[in-house]
Amino acid sequence: MRCGELPSKAVLGERVEVRARIFADGRPRLRARVRWRAGRAGPERGWSSSPSAALEPGHEDWWSGAFDADRLGLGHFRLEAWEDRFGTWRDDVLRRIEVGVDPAPEIPSGWELLLAATARLSGSRPNEVGRARLELEGLDLESQLAYLLAPELGEELARVEGQPVVASPPAPVWVERPRALFGSWYELFPRSQGSDGRSSGTLAATRERLPALADMGFDVVYLTPIHPVGRTGRRGPNNSPVAGSADPGSPWAIGGPEGGHTAIDPQLGSLADFHALVRAARELDLEVAMDYALQCSPDHPWVQQHPDWFARRPDGTMRPAENPPKRYDDIYPLDFGCADWRALWEACYQILEYWIAQGVAIFRVDNPHTKPVPFWRSVIERLRQEHPEVILLAEAFTRPAMMRELAQVGFSQSYTYFTWRSGKDELTAYLQEVAGETGAYLRPNFFVNTPDILTAELQEGGPPAFRSRLLLAATMSSSYGIYSGFEHLEREVLQPGSEDYLDSEKYQFRPRPEAGDPTLMELIRTLNLTRRQHPALQQFRRIFFHWTDHPSLICYSKTDLDRQDRILVVANLDPFQPHESMVHLDLSELGVRDDSDFLVQDLLGGTEFHWHGAHNFVRLDPQRAPGHLFWVRP
Amino acid sequence: MRCGELPSKAVLGERVEVRARIFADGRPRLRARVRWRAGRAGPERGWSSSPSAALEPGHEDWWSGAFDADRLGLGHFRLEAWEDRFGTWRDDVLRRIEVGVDPAPEIPSGWELLLAATARLSGSRPNEVGRARLELEGLDLESQLAYLLAPELGEELARVEGQPVVASPPAPVWVERPRALFGSWYELFPRSQGSDGRSSGTLAATRERLPALADMGFDVVYLTPIHPVGRTGRRGPNNSPVAGSADPGSPWAIGGPEGGHTAIDPQLGSLADFHALVRAARELDLEVAMDYALQCSPDHPWVQQHPDWFARRPDGTMRPAENPPKRYDDIYPLDFGCADWRALWEACYQILEYWIAQGVAIFRVDNPHTKPVPFWRSVIERLRQEHPEVILLAEAFTRPAMMRELAQVGFSQSYTYFTWRSGKDELTAYLQEVAGETGAYLRPNFFVNTPDILTAELQEGGPPAFRSRLLLAATMSSSYGIYSGFEHLEREVLQPGSEDYLDSEKYQFRPRPEAGDPTLMELIRTLNLTRRQHPALQQFRRIFFHWTDHPSLICYSKTDLDRQDRILVVANLDPFQPHESMVHLDLSELGVRDDSDFLVQDLLGGTEFHWHGAHNFVRLDPQRAPGHLFWVRP
Repeated sequence: MRCGELPSKAVLGERVEVRARIFADGRPRLRARVRWRAGRAGPERGWSSSPSAALEPGHEDWWSGAFDADRLGLGHFRLEAWEDRFGTWRDDVLRRIEVGVDPAPEIPSGWELLLAATARLSGSRPNEVGRARLELEGLDLESQLAYLLAPELGEELARVEGQPVVASPPAPVWVERPRALFGSWYELFPRSQGSDGRSSGTLAATRERLPALADMGFDVVYLTPIHPVGRTGRRGPNNSPVAGSADPGSPWAIGGPEGGHTAIDPQLGSLADFHALVRAARELDLEVAMDYALQCSPDHPWVQQHPDWFARRPDGTMRPAENPPKRYDDIYPLDFGCADWRALWEACYQILEYWIAQGVAIFRVDNPHTKPVPFWRSVIERLRQEHPEVILLAEAFTRPAMMRELAQVGFSQSYTYFTWRSGKDELTAYLQEVAGETGAYLRPNFFVNTPDILTAELQEGGPPAFRSRLLLAATMSSSYGIYSGFEHLEREVLQPGSEDYLDSEKYQFRPRPEAGDPTLMELIRTLNLTRRQHPALQQFRRIFFHWTDHPSLICYSKTDLDRQDRILVVANLDPFQPHESMVHLDLSELGVRDDSDFLVQDLLGGTEFHWHGAHNFVRLDPQRAPGHLFWVRP
Repeated sequence: MRCGELPSKAVLGERVEVRARIFADGRPRLRARVRWRAGRAGPERGWSSSPSAALEPGHEDWWSGAFDADRLGLGHFRLEAWEDRFGTWRDDVLRRIEVGVDPAPEIPSGWELLLAATARLSGSRPNEVGRARLELEGLDLESQLAYLLAPELGEELARVEGQPVVASPPAPVWVERPRALFGSWYELFPRSQGSDGRSSGTLAATRERLPALADMGFDVVYLTPIHPVGRTGRRGPNNSPVAGSADPGSPWAIGGPEGGHTAIDPQLGSLADFHALVRAARELDLEVAMDYALQCSPDHPWVQQHPDWFARRPDGTMRPAENPPKRYDDIYPLDFGCADWRALWEACYQILEYWIAQGVAIFRVDNPHTKPVPFWRSVIERLRQEHPEVILLAEAFTRPAMMRELAQVGFSQSYTYFTWRSGKDELTAYLQEVAGETGAYLRPNFFVNTPDILTAELQEGGPPAFRSRLLLAATMSSSYGIYSGFEHLEREVLQPGSEDYLDSEKYQFRPRPEAGDPTLMELIRTLNLTRRQHPALQQFRRIFFHWTDHPSLICYSKTDLDRQDRILVVANLDPFQPHESMVHLDLSELGVRDDSDFLVQDLLGGTEFHWHGAHNFVRLDPQRAPGHLFWVRP
């Protein structure tokens, strides 16, 4: 968590870790706690506090603790600290005794401070303590010290809260539903579902695929745009500038005579079919996510109704989307800075309202970095008021500063650079950044592929690379996804050196058999179900990298906040060769005592190993398994 | 510089570097500048701006630039950014031409944007540009492009400032006089000056030492406390709990029948002697710094006048300073949280006022971390109003969080951990923290020794270690200091494993001959004079570490902001053995072109080397020289 104007992020039921530097002049015994207030209540109302909210001191004056995000919506936390004056006295007297200095002159202070502290004890305790003082004060030193330094008394007082003398300003936290943090995503093109390769599939056929996806353990099924596709400038197979009459065009060229962003392509089906799809998904504990792509085909109704919403040249001609030498005649960008921007922004927001009314609560936002940040800020602020359940995933493959900015203004999740991080050092550094530097506000979603990104690694590494990348994505990040065809090991590239799929589904129907590669299907299912069972895999901020002696073997552990659930992954990043190495664990990270025996169970194969101490041997053959997914047994 | 509530630091005449991430949606050509406003003027008055204030874009949307801190006191800077719309158009058209896309449809936009931009050109230029448009618009593509894309036109427009569309909030900067940033310090005990070892030296004798110190190139002479020393509980030689009748006691046990913090020990001389000392120093371009130690001996007048200002036990007895098992019966700590705290804080502030009236403008503050931070904040805020010329050096050898806090509330300088950083890796990491992470607000002062700190390195390494540490301190930090005796190679320790001097000057007179070790004296003088001649050595934020192949050879360069002055240091950290290594320079840091010849002149010996390219050989023998101090010649 961080302090600041823009909210940090949490999800309902999450135990949220906080850290702060707390210190004072001299060497007093300090105590501190975190308090939490859900909702938009007044400044002093409703601060919760519980014994579990105490902060614990650590290295170099860093204190840490946690609070429970117990209500959806905006909340605030703040840190409070005070001096435990009796505790300071106690430390001092124990030190005197230790180094052989007479503590006698300090006894009267001890009684004074104890009486002051006991005013906060409950019931008859203050009276009892007062009586003890009267009885003991005349007696010998030992009797008085025995009472004042009794461990039980110390523990009793440590449970009592003091009066804070400093408090941090309230720091905002946006609490979303748990799916914003944790979920396994599957991306598909509805028009390929049930297609024969020549004509469009349907929403009904998409619905029929859902049980298989649910069985594979997915939580979210993300649909590429389902709206009418423009005819003008339509792209043909492999992004050719000329489309045949049967070619479907890119679904991101949104809008035709049948309607725009609130219409459904009639070939896919009706609104009733869409409702049936959403309902069927819900019954399977699956959730439908839609694409939110703010651009129009030349045939979009807005082009006629609101010609001033589009970028134009001074001579009045429309300016199509282009990135010279590439030019996309099938897409007109919207001009978010046009004179009529208020109406345009409102219309864009109303698209979300429309689909929310149809039962959609997750949107994958196409290229948000090409629209103004203030637009997103206004959209997200309204959604937070009206629809706090809505989750937005930012598809911003752009510069770090812009990715962070979009996360800060409130996108629930973000695509990341994971796709292009493959070496051990770069994966480690990137995950440490994701978990640490940006962890308070940017939630990652690690996709292994997308319709636009078939990485060189998958192209060249073949099935072992598919398995390895899958294991990394599903265990490093609490949200991850695959785009369909992954399970079929699709890896034919348009041309050497590119990341474009050959015969990309963006420009043609791609029917596929339901079952993919059996080994990969089994791995996907195992990973998804394991993720549901293990809280350690349902968060992304607590990851720790352990040392291995081999540059292709990466080892990391994930734990929940109390280290009750402990997952240890050792993966081979080389898809071609088996490698072996000693793995050197930081046992304290795993909550295992030095030099003790412990059991690790490989959840990918069921094998159990009895390990001893920090240094253990591992051998991984990429033809057999991408790595070990160990559950460190209690 | 950093944005925030508490001011960053600069000195008068300093060119202050600023950095910020600046970006927008899409790919516009952005421009940005930094504006600066001295004084406490109203929100929109007096923002200065000059062409040199333009920010330049760099890696990952980081922009950098600088402003001139041109007035003492509080000022503010802010960053402003806007889109250069004609520049965006120009980039786009150049790209089209490059990739073979017809730019013709973009020409009308170009004229529109150019006319809008020229409204900000001076004199008759807008008219000339308007005429050019009328003449050329009917003509062929080439003629129009030749005009619109002419480099001179681009340069002309790039010098014109646009209307900012975003601005950062004003960020406060505290501008002090240059001595706050740059100076060579010499610490001495006035009572040892002219002493025969049995009776006290004098301020008059101290005055006689000044020409020698000035000749060695020092800028500041820092006096340990000159006040009457308490008799009660006085410490004897080597901190023994019993003092003989002739023992002077610790000068930090302040106060006796003759007076407290505003009195001068009569054995040292009179206030007139002090004035003479201050005057004599000033004539030599030396400045006197005083000790500000807020604690009292049991004989301090305040103990009688204000018994409630001191920490007491419930039975009313005074609580002496102690750190069990150590107990300092010669010192009573002040209780800054006592009921009468306002009067106490005021009295403490008035001590400063008194000495400022006597001509003192630099104070070395003893143990500020044991007093409440709000006290320092109130002191510093008053000083800033009343005496902006006053410089405070924090002697806070404490935890990092507190050191940073004291710097943030406004101490001009801080003692650092340099004293205990000796290995190549730890020196590199620490200097990068000092220059970077805390550089905006914490100014280091690198002392090589203090009356309390005789490092193991100096004890064991002998003369070569003294020379090596001196070279590091004087070139790594813009402020550095030595405590007297250093030049005599004093290194006898009280007991093995401690850092205490044997026969410490804290508890006895330590007369010394004026001249120390000739080699060390010469090195001190050369370093101090070189520091005055080279702006690169008068700042601490621009340091860069270059690679060497040997773990005992460290190499770093310092440059001023425009890389006009370039200093390169190669030092041997091993006082016992000669070492040799290739030194691999990042030539761009030195402003030298790859593969070119350049001249480096060793300012410690006068030798010149003709170096070629990035990789050069160095051999350093600690018996001969601590390292090379190269001036990279223009």
